[in-house]
Amino acid sequence: MQFELTKEFIDDIILALEKEDSGYIVEAINPLHPADIAEILEIINLTQAQFLYQLLDEKLASEVLVEIEEDTREQFLESFSPKEIAESVEKMDADDATDIIQDLPEEVQEEVLEALQDEDHSSDISMLMNYDENSAGGIMDTEFISADWNWTVKNALKKLREQVENVDQVYTIYVIDSSKKFKGILSLKRFLYASDDTLIKDIYKQDSITVFDNEEAETVASKMEKYDLVVIPVVNENQTLLGRITIDDALDVIKEEAEKDYQMASGISEKIEPSDSLFVISRARLPWLLIGMVGGILGAYVIGFFEEHLKENAVMASFIPLILAMGGNVGVQSSAIIVQSLANNTLNYESIFKKLFKELLVALFNGLICAFIALIFCWLTRSDFTLALTIGVSLVAVFTYAGLFGTFVPLILNKYKIDPALATGPFITTTNDIIGLLIYFLIGIALYF
Amino acid sequence: MQFELTKEFIDDIILALEKEDSGYIVEAINPLHPADIAEILEIINLTQAQFLYQLLDEKLASEVLVEIEEDTREQFLESFSPKEIAESVEKMDADDATDIIQDLPEEVQEEVLEALQDEDHSSDISMLMNYDENSAGGIMDTEFISADWNWTVKNALKKLREQVENVDQVYTIYVIDSSKKFKGILSLKRFLYASDDTLIKDIYKQDSITVFDNEEAETVASKMEKYDLVVIPVVNENQTLLGRITIDDALDVIKEEAEKDYQMASGISEKIEPSDSLFVISRARLPWLLIGMVGGILGAYVIGFFEEHLKENAVMASFIPLILAMGGNVGVQSSAIIVQSLANNTLNYESIFKKLFKELLVALFNGLICAFIALIFCWLTRSDFTLALTIGVSLVAVFTYAGLFGTFVPLILNKYKIDPALATGPFITTTNDIIGLLIYFLIGIALYF
Repeated sequence: MQFELTKEFIDDIILALEKEDSGYIVEAINPLHPADIAEILEIINLTQAQFLYQLLDEKLASEVLVEIEEDTREQFLESFSPKEIAESVEKMDADDATDIIQDLPEEVQEEVLEALQDEDHSSDISMLMNYDENSAGGIMDTEFISADWNWTVKNALKKLREQVENVDQVYTIYVIDSSKKFKGILSLKRFLYASDDTLIKDIYKQDSITVFDNEEAETVASKMEKYDLVVIPVVNENQTLLGRITIDDALDVIKEEAEKDYQMASGISEKIEPSDSLFVISRARLPWLLIGMVGGILGAYVIGFFEEHLKENAVMASFIPLILAMGGNVGVQSSAIIVQSLANNTLNYESIFKKLFKELLVALFNGLICAFIALIFCWLTRSDFTLALTIGVSLVAVFTYAGLFGTFVPLILNKYKIDPALATGPFITTTNDIIGLLIYFLIGIALYF
Repeated sequence: MQFELTKEFIDDIILALEKEDSGYIVEAINPLHPADIAEILEIINLTQAQFLYQLLDEKLASEVLVEIEEDTREQFLESFSPKEIAESVEKMDADDATDIIQDLPEEVQEEVLEALQDEDHSSDISMLMNYDENSAGGIMDTEFISADWNWTVKNALKKLREQVENVDQVYTIYVIDSSKKFKGILSLKRFLYASDDTLIKDIYKQDSITVFDNEEAETVASKMEKYDLVVIPVVNENQTLLGRITIDDALDVIKEEAEKDYQMASGISEKIEPSDSLFVISRARLPWLLIGMVGGILGAYVIGFFEEHLKENAVMASFIPLILAMGGNVGVQSSAIIVQSLANNTLNYESIFKKLFKELLVALFNGLICAFIALIFCWLTRSDFTLALTIGVSLVAVFTYAGLFGTFVPLILNKYKIDPALATGPFITTTNDIIGLLIYFLIGIALYF
C-alpha cells in the first residue's frame, strides 16, 4: 500500500465535513491507518474533528486517539464524559491508556479509572500512573507473553495461543520461573525451530539485557539503540518481570531528546510546537533574549570603557561585528561537536586535555587563515597597517579563546550532571561577545600606542 | 543483565593487552555483547585492537565487525587480506556485509566478492551494492521469511522452521503468491493463534504498508516512525518482494539526519566526529567561518558608511553588540522552530502567511519587552533620551525583521527542495548582522537629527 495524505484528499474531506456528508467521509476514512486519521484530525478544526471522530467505529476510534498529538487530544477530550473516555481506553494497551488518562484533570482521572470494566486493566493503569513519565516504568507496557521454563514447546504453543489474544504485537517470549522471576528470553526463531517435546529451559537464552523499572527513559533508549533491540524487558529490583518497552516508545524518547537539545541550542527554553499559543511561544523564547540583553548591556560597558580610544580611532568600531561574529561562530561550532558526542556517549574515555589540545590546533589553523584574509583586506582597502594587525591578531586570539571555551564549558557542565546542551547557543555566544570585545580593544590599545 | 562498560574494566583490559595476557582477555571479553566489544576496540589503539580481535572466535568476530564505527573499521581492515575479510562477512546478513564491502577500496571489493563461498550470499551482496546508500534498497536486508498463500498453517510451520535458520530475528511472516509477488503480512500472533488446517490465504492481512526499493531512506524512516513499524517490506515496481528494512537501520537514518541538521545549524558543513583528523574538522568548519568573514567585512562597510555620524555620537558604537546579539538570537529561534517542524512534517497544511503573522506577533511582544528594558536602562544610566529611544525603536524593528526573515527563509528553501537546515545558524546570523546594523544606524540618524 502506498497511501499518501495529499492536500486534495484533505480538501475533499473538509468539503464533505462542511456538507456533513457522513457516507462519503466514512468510506474515505475507514481504510486509512489510524496515524493518518489522527493527522487529519489535527489539521481540521475542533468541531469538524469531533464530528469526524463520532463516525469512527469503536475500535478504530480508540486506535486513532492513541495517535493524536497530546495538545490536540486534551482539547478533544474536554467534550467527553469520563464514561466515554473509559470506553475508549478500555481496549488500549495499558501504557497508551495511562498516557491519555494522565493528561486529564485529576478529578476526571479518578472517575475514568472507576468507570473501567476490566479490573486488571484498571489496576495495571494505576500501577503505571505511579511511575515518573521519564522512567522505564513510565514508558513500559504491561502486555507481553511469557512462558514458564518448565513447559515443553508443544505445551507452550498451546498456552501462548491463549495469551496472544491480549498482546498487540509479539516480538519475543519471556521466560520466567514458577515465582514469576525473569530468567531470559526465547526467540520466536528458536521456538519455531525446536521440536515439540523440548523443554523451554533447554532452549531459552540466559543473560538477556533488562532494565529496571526506575531507570531513566533516556538510558533505556540508548541501551536499545546500542544493542539494536526492538523490545526490552523491564524488571523490578527482585527480578520480577513487570513489562516490556518497545522500540517505538524508545524512539519517541530519542527524538524528543534530540529536539529538546536543538531547541535549547537555539535559545528556546521549553519544548514548543509552532501550534502552541502566542503566550507559550513568547515565554519559551524570552529567557534567552533577556540573557542576550544582559550580555549586550555588558558589551556596552566594555565598549564604553574604551570610548576615548574609540573617538581617536573610530575605524575600530567598524570591525566590532566581524570580531563578534567570528567568536560566536567558533564557539557554537566547537560546543556543538562536544554536545553531540556527549549525547551519543562517544567520548567518555578520552581526556579533557587531549580534546582541548585538538580544538586549540583547529582554532589556530582556521584562525590563521581568517586572520590572514582580514589582514590583507584591511591593509589593501584602508592602508592602515596598525588596524590590519589589530584585526588579524585579535581574530587569532578570539578563535583560540572561543574554541577552547566552547569545548570546555559543555564538558564541565556534563561532569557536574548539568545538561551540556544548555551551554550551546545564546550562553556561549553571549559570553564570547563580551570576552571577544575585551580581547579586541586591549589588543587595539596595545598596538596603537 | 545490567552490564556497564566502566573505566576500571577498560583499564584492566588495556593492562592485560600490554602484558599480552590472552587468557584474561578472552575470559573478560567473551561474555560481552558485540556492541560492547566494538566500543572497547574503538577506545584502545589500533595494534591493541588487532591483537584483541584475533582472540575472538569467528562468529563473535564477525558480529563485532558489524558494530564498529565506519572509520575505525576502515583502518582496521587494512591489515586483512581479501580472503580473511570474505571469511568474516560470510555469515553476516547481506546488508551488513554490503556496508562493510562498500567501504573497501574498489579492487579489494572484487576480490572479497569472489572469495565468498556461498554464491547466493555473494549475488545478494552484489545486488545490494547497486543501490544508492540512501535508498530503501541501500539499507534493506535480504533475509526474511515468507509463506505461500496457498499453504496451510501446519505446512507453513514446517516450512518456516527450515527458513528461520538463515534469519536473525523473525518479526513477521511475508505472504507471497506463486510468482513471488508480495500479497501482505501474517502476524506471528495470528499465526500462533490459528488452527493447523487454516489456509494462510484466509488469515493474512492485505494492504500492508510497503516501500519501493528506490524510495529515499529518509522517507522510509519517517514512514516507519509514523506508523510505529518495527519492520517494513521492500518491493520493486512489479510488487516482487525483495527484502525488509528493520527499525534499527531506520533509527540510524533518523539519528544521522537529526545530527546533520544540528551540525549544519551550528555551522559545520560535513558530518564529523571528534575523532576525525585535524584537517577534516578544520575543513568542515571553514566554509561557514568564511561566510562569517564576508558578513563581518560587509558589516564594516555599513558602519564605515556612518563613520561621520559615529564620530559625533561615539556612544552609538557601544550598543552595536546588543543590536547584533538580539537580531541573531531572534533569527535563530524563529528559524529553529520552522526547521524542526519541517523535518517532522508537522506544518504542511498551514499557510505561510498565517505563520508569518504569528511570528510577527511573537517578535513584537518580545521586542517590546526588551526594548522597554533597554530604553529605561539607557535613559537612567546615560541620561540620553535620544540614545534610549534609538535603542528601543531599533530593537523592535530588528526583532520584527529577524523574526520574519528567520521564518520565511527556511520555508522558501523548503519550497524549492533545498534543505532548510542550511538556513539556520551562520547564514541567518550573518544576514541579520548586516540588516540589523543598517536598521540601527538609519534609526539613529533619523532620531538624532
